[in-house]
Amino acid sequence: MSGFTDLGYARVDTDREVRQGLPEVVYAPGKRPEEITGIVTELLARSTGPVLVTRVEADVAAQVDVPGGSYDETARVLVWRPAPPGSFRVCLATAGTADWPVAAEAEAVCTAIGLTVDVVRDVGVAGLHRLLAVREQLERADAVIVVAGMEGALASAVGGLVECPVIAVPTSTGYGAALEGVTALLAMLTSCAAGLTVVNIDSGFSAAMAAHRLARTTARRR
Amino acid sequence: MSGFTDLGYARVDTDREVRQGLPEVVYAPGKRPEEITGIVTELLARSTGPVLVTRVEADVAAQVDVPGGSYDETARVLVWRPAPPGSFRVCLATAGTADWPVAAEAEAVCTAIGLTVDVVRDVGVAGLHRLLAVREQLERADAVIVVAGMEGALASAVGGLVECPVIAVPTSTGYGAALEGVTALLAMLTSCAAGLTVVNIDSGFSAAMAAHRLARTTARRR
Amino acid sequence: MSGFTDLGYARVDTDREVRQGLPEVVYAPGKRPEEITGIVTELLARSTGPVLVTRVEADVAAQVDVPGGSYDETARVLVWRPAPPGSFRVCLATAGTADWPVAAEAEAVCTAIGLTVDVVRDVGVAGLHRLLAVREQLERADAVIVVAGMEGALASAVGGLVECPVIAVPTSTGYGAALEGVTALLAMLTSCAAGLTVVNIDSGFSAAMAAHRLARTTARRR
Amino acid sequence: MSGFTDLGYARVDTDREVRQGLPEVVYAPGKRPEEITGIVTELLARSTGPVLVTRVEADVAAQVDVPGGSYDETARVLVWRPAPPGSFRVCLATAGTADWPVAAEAEAVCTAIGLTVDVVRDVGVAGLHRLLAVREQLERADAVIVVAGMEGALASAVGGLVECPVIAVPTSTGYGAALEGVTALLAMLTSCAAGLTVVNIDSGFSAAMAAHRLARTTARRR
Amino acid sequence: MSGFTDLGYARVDTDREVRQGLPEVVYAPGKRPEEITGIVTELLARSTGPVLVTRVEADVAAQVDVPGGSYDETARVLVWRPAPPGSFRVCLATAGTADWPVAAEAEAVCTAIGLTVDVVRDVGVAGLHRLLAVREQLERADAVIVVAGMEGALASAVGGLVECPVIAVPTSTGYGAALEGVTALLAMLTSCAAGLTVVNIDSGFSAAMAAHRLARTTARRR
Amino acid sequence: MSGFTDLGYARVDTDREVRQGLPEVVYAPGKRPEEITGIVTELLARSTGPVLVTRVEADVAAQVDVPGGSYDETARVLVWRPAPPGSFRVCLATAGTADWPVAAEAEAVCTAIGLTVDVVRDVGVAGLHRLLAVREQLERADAVIVVAGMEGALASAVGGLVECPVIAVPTSTGYGAALEGVTALLAMLTSCAAGLTVVNIDSGFSAAMAAHRLARTTARRR
Amino acid sequence: MSGFTDLGYARVDTDREVRQGLPEVVYAPGKRPEEITGIVTELLARSTGPVLVTRVEADVAAQVDVPGGSYDETARVLVWRPAPPGSFRVCLATAGTADWPVAAEAEAVCTAIGLTVDVVRDVGVAGLHRLLAVREQLERADAVIVVAGMEGALASAVGGLVECPVIAVPTSTGYGAALEGVTALLAMLTSCAAGLTVVNIDSGFSAAMAAHRLARTTARRR
Amino acid sequence: MSGFTDLGYARVDTDREVRQGLPEVVYAPGKRPEEITGIVTELLARSTGPVLVTRVEADVAAQVDVPGGSYDETARVLVWRPAPPGSFRVCLATAGTADWPVAAEAEAVCTAIGLTVDVVRDVGVAGLHRLLAVREQLERADAVIVVAGMEGALASAVGGLVECPVIAVPTSTGYGAALEGVTALLAMLTSCAAGLTVVNIDSGFSAAMAAHRLARTTARRR
Repeated sequence: MSGFTDLGYARVDTDREVRQGLPEVVYAPGKRPEEITGIVTELLARSTGPVLVTRVEADVAAQVDVPGGSYDETARVLVWRPAPPGSFRVCLATAGTADWPVAAEAEAVCTAIGLTVDVVRDVGVAGLHRLLAVREQLERADAVIVVAGMEGALASAVGGLVECPVIAVPTSTGYGAALEGVTALLAMLTSCAAGLTVVNIDSGFSAAMAAHRLARTTARRR
Repeated sequence: MSGFTDLGYARVDTDREVRQGLPEVVYAPGKRPEEITGIVTELLARSTGPVLVTRVEADVAAQVDVPGGSYDETARVLVWRPAPPGSFRVCLATAGTADWPVAAEAEAVCTAIGLTVDVVRDVGVAGLHRLLAVREQLERADAVIVVAGMEGALASAVGGLVECPVIAVPTSTGYGAALEGVTALLAMLTSCAAGLTVVNIDSGFSAAMAAHRLARTTARRR
Repeated sequence: MSGFTDLGYARVDTDREVRQGLPEVVYAPGKRPEEITGIVTELLARSTGPVLVTRVEADVAAQVDVPGGSYDETARVLVWRPAPPGSFRVCLATAGTADWPVAAEAEAVCTAIGLTVDVVRDVGVAGLHRLLAVREQLERADAVIVVAGMEGALASAVGGLVECPVIAVPTSTGYGAALEGVTALLAMLTSCAAGLTVVNIDSGFSAAMAAHRLARTTARRR
Repeated sequence: MSGFTDLGYARVDTDREVRQGLPEVVYAPGKRPEEITGIVTELLARSTGPVLVTRVEADVAAQVDVPGGSYDETARVLVWRPAPPGSFRVCLATAGTADWPVAAEAEAVCTAIGLTVDVVRDVGVAGLHRLLAVREQLERADAVIVVAGMEGALASAVGGLVECPVIAVPTSTGYGAALEGVTALLAMLTSCAAGLTVVNIDSGFSAAMAAHRLARTTARRR
Repeated sequence: MSGFTDLGYARVDTDREVRQGLPEVVYAPGKRPEEITGIVTELLARSTGPVLVTRVEADVAAQVDVPGGSYDETARVLVWRPAPPGSFRVCLATAGTADWPVAAEAEAVCTAIGLTVDVVRDVGVAGLHRLLAVREQLERADAVIVVAGMEGALASAVGGLVECPVIAVPTSTGYGAALEGVTALLAMLTSCAAGLTVVNIDSGFSAAMAAHRLARTTARRR
Repeated sequence: MSGFTDLGYARVDTDREVRQGLPEVVYAPGKRPEEITGIVTELLARSTGPVLVTRVEADVAAQVDVPGGSYDETARVLVWRPAPPGSFRVCLATAGTADWPVAAEAEAVCTAIGLTVDVVRDVGVAGLHRLLAVREQLERADAVIVVAGMEGALASAVGGLVECPVIAVPTSTGYGAALEGVTALLAMLTSCAAGLTVVNIDSGFSAAMAAHRLARTTARRR
Repeated sequence: MSGFTDLGYARVDTDREVRQGLPEVVYAPGKRPEEITGIVTELLARSTGPVLVTRVEADVAAQVDVPGGSYDETARVLVWRPAPPGSFRVCLATAGTADWPVAAEAEAVCTAIGLTVDVVRDVGVAGLHRLLAVREQLERADAVIVVAGMEGALASAVGGLVECPVIAVPTSTGYGAALEGVTALLAMLTSCAAGLTVVNIDSGFSAAMAAHRLARTTARRR
Repeated sequence: MSGFTDLGYARVDTDREVRQGLPEVVYAPGKRPEEITGIVTELLARSTGPVLVTRVEADVAAQVDVPGGSYDETARVLVWRPAPPGSFRVCLATAGTADWPVAAEAEAVCTAIGLTVDVVRDVGVAGLHRLLAVREQLERADAVIVVAGMEGALASAVGGLVECPVIAVPTSTGYGAALEGVTALLAMLTSCAAGLTVVNIDSGFSAAMAAHRLARTTARRR
């Protein structure tokens, strides 16, 4: 068996689930609704786990014609066959309100693939008392996803509080010297807190998938 | 108790080990040998685990006057009281020979803090048969650290082969459009393989510490 | 004879075909439909080979009033007097679905100028088995055009598999650290596979013309 | 009177002290010791306040032949006629040991021009307890100068704790994505703490002069 | 008491006024009118000073349903309970007409928080006589905010004329090499006038808040 | 057979010659002379064609202990078993004298692998008569390698004169806005001449290898 | 007399004509039609020479209510009281059709201020015969303005042909690596032709004003 | 006659003097002393005007073996057969002492080619009285060359004072956000003073050659 299916407009990788334990995820931009419909249908037929479409706008989502899916408008995520909640706990921390859409994508993907998410909002370092108030929530987590834009300082502060993996997601919020998220990205990469890791700007999806890989390793080693 | 000691030239964080389970690590650049000596002495007295100094050149290392340390010249790392080898297995993969010094830092730090390291060298994607030949080694790991410069494509290829966490370390090898490692950094951040995470250019140390955080979570959950 | 014609709004190079064996190509952006009509009419009158207009949107194409042309909407290319298929074989490989519009431009131009194109889609390195499955198709080609965005790793992998010229086309797909295609461009320029060459971001046209130059040299040397 | 003196190799602004209440400061790079000697001699003759030379290396300082000066090697500052300590209190906070040379320049200049400096070292946000331990020192200040490299997060944290002016100085410490201080600069400019101001990378001098301007306004308004 | 209130969609910092003497300010982008309404209502209930919303477009402002606010369309600022005019005098200088919207934000925020503003417009350095004509206005100020785009030279010229703090605000006016304000930002950071400080591109708000911090220190020391 | 040999410090790809018809090339930076000696010895034993070491400084070259090699100091290339001259003609054109070291690398590698090189020097576009004087030499070539720094305009001019493949090599000559070759790189990528291809800054090696790929395809199709 | 008039929304410099012999020019972006009307009316009343408005879109131009003006839509320039044609000859050369709007601004401004313009279009270096065909026109000029985007090579080629001043205007045409005109700008600044000067991207206006300054000096010296 | 001579290591353009009235100038970097000797000897034999070598360090200059030359160490320029002083007056203005080496190159080249130079030093905009004091000197000039680093504001201020051509030379002085002269370059390109032109960073040579072109046009028109 080849491990993929050629739909003409796309070559669908149908054994990723077997090969990597990764869910099947379709990146919507540049695909027409009928193409998304075709790919999702194929994936549902060839695999048994969750199937997701990310970065899908509401008008496109409405035209994807595959029964059983649910759509989260803030997260811009479509989900079929979500996994049942598992024991791996992700704490999702945001610096400010403007970071929420990116965090929402991380939350939607984590939930769809069976990770348990605990959200702490608006704990940016300009008000340290807000961050210190949620310290226990942070410490209970198996991994923390920090979503922050502008100077991205929250990642460093959290990195200094917890011992578990911290996945930093820079966001493109802000203006001027924020440089569409590049400043937060660079700041997170040079954090003074040891052992932080970073994913692409605005990629709540990548952070969720990184958490999934952690959960896989943790599960395997038990 | 304050949780730190003021040496005049430095304020030493002496409860990080307790607070985070992180080893005590001193970043050498900009510190004189006698200052490093002072800080290491203090840390050894106040904690019980491994103490490391990173990015320390051979001539400086020779002047650090604290008994019991060992020095790795390629890795530029000094270590006191290394942890015994644990069960968490890190596979450390490099794309080319020029990436080795950065990988050596990752290996030295991992080993010092008790992670078990398996090295696969020179498996850059321009010779895929070399990479496919080590697939089993990669799949056995609890986490993979990929060290690569120039276009950094190895991270994507490995990310597509394994299900465990992949920590990508861009290196500043190469010239011209390699832009001192910025190209590899950007390439790794935009990898088509889902759930990769990235650390700062040339930071074998950060990758090791990220692996340490993974090991902590894994251990806690068992 | 001067070798060009002055239409007032443009000075048309009418002997490029003689001088270089290159097809006549009009770059549409910034030109009004009636100007394109005028230039194409002039070129058809003064030369005998294919005439193309690139980057022409559907609404503009509809207003270009020259009989005998055909329009490819995905490629955004208008063609008159396409060349008959020749023996030079170009394999056109794309990393992901989002790269297709750029590849479509390359395919349309190659076909219009008489190169034979073989397409392999969606063979990004995150699923190496898909790439290895098309290895024979790649090896049969006289030249390979690799179209990829984000980290552009496919170019390196293909460069390591084939001995023929590889022309890499970075695309502006992706977001954040993809930097509108700059990341893929830099990555391809620093590929660890020897002897790759690169063209401008999103320029399927340039890749096709580079292949045309290869075909000319090959034909001349037979 | 012209307000300046032409020494041939330099046109010395001799009424800045009168015009702006600013001390006379010579920037050493690119000037020969005998030129510095000449300018300082002229300034001491034409004004009555402190005269400083900044960024002067030890070997050059040793050749500047003007009696009565004192040299601070870490700060690389030469001072004649320092002002007596005044009542304006500057708190000078650094994130890490590597930031000290820049902070030393700020301290030396502040002291020379009559500002009272209180130093708090090594209070980077990766160990928030160290920062919170000095909160009172920060709150007592009339202005805080924050010196930090890498991700520069300390500026935001301090900005959220105090009500007085905060002058952030990015430093060129770190490597890779720290981009020679550009990352810290951008991060400080996009701080989520309101009303921070920023000076050039590594410019302890600029921060001190900004504090001087604050002290002038404060003094005038009493 | 926790010092913040959780509204679900936002965690409102309700003791900033007590902690820092800073006004309560809501950054509008990314928030829905009803969310702004909720946050403002909460802030008015929990504090006693001015409450502001910045960067709020006219159509959003019209939907914010909290009595007693006033809206400045050029400044894009909503204000409730403005402070009475105080004795701290800010001179607000602009280089050209295109810089006015940013200056308007600075003026609106300054006025709302009780600073007295004196505006001098269009005094760019290409017509030095215009600048010299307002020299007295500049010298009377307790702080000067300079708003300028393109090459930002006005900040240096003003910095050389006054002894008080100068807060430079780069604007994104201009085109091409102005790089959306980055050129003005860099130019202001490298000003030859000593002791200037700089805030983010287009951030009239930050400049006003920096002036507020100055006023607080000045007031405290009297 | 595995297709590679593990020397401990390097994993040598020993079937590239068979797989791709590419010569065996060792990149010297970061390798010790004894490592280069070991790798070259292995390659000579396992293959039959040319073996090259590039970017090798004179002092390192002198310590490489493998009989039969020849060293070109300007090109910084070591060669064993050069191929006999073949019929594929490369014209190597440089814009200025400062570009010669990069061109020398291209020439040395081309010659070592059996391509016939014709050099035209110093034909930058600021003196078009010099370029037009060599037009026939350019037209006779099967491929042209253009080596130019600063604004790299020679590539466009040559691209407009010949019909064969043009491989542009940007060089890091010049200063200031030349940005270490980035300007030439960008200029060549955006050339108005159709079908040019570009390699990394200063990489005469890449250009030669790209020419080799052309020669392979040409030979195969005869 | 003050030399300027304060209209409330703008401080109009009314003696620039006397001081510098420069025409009065209003930059339209950010100004409302009624403001432009007011400024133009003031300038016409206070001076006697040409008055221009640049970068004014057609819909705004239609609302500027000052009699006697003429509007050039391609150039986006409004002119009142154009100067009579003078003897200073500017040759305006463009590389391609897409550069015309910028050249049109240069032409409109030159003509309005009394310079005589000779246009040569579409003489990009990819077709050198087109450039050489206009060599005499270029040599007759007192100054040449070269308008080119992408790699901007035309400036170097022209700079090598003529002895008079060459003012290079980079344009933002092209895509990808053209970087919105930055590539052309950098290329022109590093031209191998000696003594070229460069103005801002897309600034036909600046080039015309630079030519005006040349004409002033030339006239004065006769 | 071909118009150039091939020396093997260089193709010397020997009719530039005839073709363009430009002096013969050799750029030293990358050339060996004996090569410079050969080129200069050839140029002196084939032309009659001044011959210059630029950017030549003292140790290299000492080895150039051609009688009759004079060397300026600060300017790093070698000159043979300087032109007699002409009537074209260049005013050379510098912002600070650190800009002098670049200005010295401009002065040496101007003088060698027969332009009369008037120097005004250290007139940076932070002390406007110094600039206004030299206003008459500036107004007497036929062209002004402004040499300034950091924020480069002097160019704008001078551009607003004089009517003649202003050639701005950014310098790489300063540190941090000065970005090796890029900030000054960008600032000068976006000057609010109309009609300024700009040359490459640190290129006193280019400014002098631009002035030479002005002088040629002026002379021709008399």
